[in-house]
Amino acid sequence: MADLKQLMDNEVFMAFSSYATIVLIKMMFMSTATAFQRLTNKFFANPEDCASFGKGENAKKYLQTEEKMELVRTHLNDIENIVPFLGIGLLYSLSGPDLSTALLHFRIFVGTQIYHTIAYLTPLPQLNRALAFFGGFGVTLSMAYRLLKSRLYL
Amino acid sequence: MADLKQLMDNEVFMAFSSYATIVLIKMMFMSTATAFQRLTNKFFANPEDCASFGKGENAKKYLQTEEKMELVRTHLNDIENIVPFLGIGLLYSLSGPDLSTALLHFRIFVGTQIYHTIAYLTPLPQLNRALAFFGGFGVTLSMAYRLLKSRLYL
Amino acid sequence: MADLKQLMDNEVFMAFSSYATIVLIKMMFMSTATAFQRLTNKFFANPEDCASFGKGENAKKYLQTEEKMELVRTHLNDIENIVPFLGIGLLYSLSGPDLSTALLHFRIFVGTQIYHTIAYLTPLPQLNRALAFFGGFGVTLSMAYRLLKSRLYL
Repeated sequence: MADLKQLMDNEVFMAFSSYATIVLIKMMFMSTATAFQRLTNKFFANPEDCASFGKGENAKKYLQTEEKMELVRTHLNDIENIVPFLGIGLLYSLSGPDLSTALLHFRIFVGTQIYHTIAYLTPLPQLNRALAFFGGFGVTLSMAYRLLKSRLYL
Repeated sequence: MADLKQLMDNEVFMAFSSYATIVLIKMMFMSTATAFQRLTNKFFANPEDCASFGKGENAKKYLQTEEKMELVRTHLNDIENIVPFLGIGLLYSLSGPDLSTALLHFRIFVGTQIYHTIAYLTPLPQLNRALAFFGGFGVTLSMAYRLLKSRLYL
Repeated sequence: MADLKQLMDNEVFMAFSSYATIVLIKMMFMSTATAFQRLTNKFFANPEDCASFGKGENAKKYLQTEEKMELVRTHLNDIENIVPFLGIGLLYSLSGPDLSTALLHFRIFVGTQIYHTIAYLTPLPQLNRALAFFGGFGVTLSMAYRLLKSRLYL
């Protein structure tokens, strides 16, 4: 157990744990929020709104499929950003980087994720979301580059 | 290597490894099962079943899109539950919790996942699936809370 | 810190870090590539191509939904393969396997992933993609089996 104690007393690893947990909790609440939103929308869906897409039965079908697509895309965006961050970030934080550099990476990533969520929920005009996405993308790439530079073994 | 031996002799970590592997194998088989189901459905699709949605060509299109949506949703549900469990569970099991508390968390999570799959495949009426989902959700949140309480470093 | 140094000097873990990072970077670029492809397709979509599916407004709707479905499926395929590999691979590489066996697993997995991407982008006829998928599937199952055999604790 002395072993694990040392691992968790490592500050970079503690910082990674905290930020990763925050991002994952955010993702979990996003998925619940969208599920509730879907339920609410189903009950209060305004049939007039779909009249422009087609007629009668057709209209309702279109509405549901498009709506579901949007929800699926949101979940996927979150998962797409977070899976590489978790994988690369864990390995990066175990490769013994500077505390300040690592903190900078984690903080920018969590910042862009929260910004992305706000931009999605408000919703802000499109360029905000793209910026947030590429911010997180850049942080993950930078960690991957540092990791591969110091520890490449193929 | 003495180092890694100590890590893998840690009982909490061994338990996490076993349960995480079981959940991941279940997820892999679910994705194969749904792929086979899709193939089978394509060959044996009953055109009478879709007559209620529209006519001729339209009917088939609706059917396929809706069917694919359902499959995509199932995969996403699995991934949405398992990614936070993997991330938070790994960090939690490295933070040195009690063995009995950790085992309780892992067992309930794996139980809810298997219950969710059974509820999905049988299929049981809807409240079962929601219960299973929120069971897993609660376990992950509880681990996240314990992790952040003992090791917050921002 | 002496502790982490030992972990990162472990050759199996270094190899896993390198291969996992490569697979994750590939996944990130795939998601960006498909996003750009979507933008391009939207601007240059040929309305004649959709005439066979329906008429007027209907035609466009079908096209978009089907197109989006395809993109969502690609992302999901990637994520479905990579999440179990990351989880099981990490635990496997910490369980102290032979270096040569572990390298064999990692290399075959990365190989099948790259083959899958080439088969998807070219596109090669279908059996290639299925072969690549089941190659990666087999590698992950083999790692899971070895892991559970040596360290089962329920």
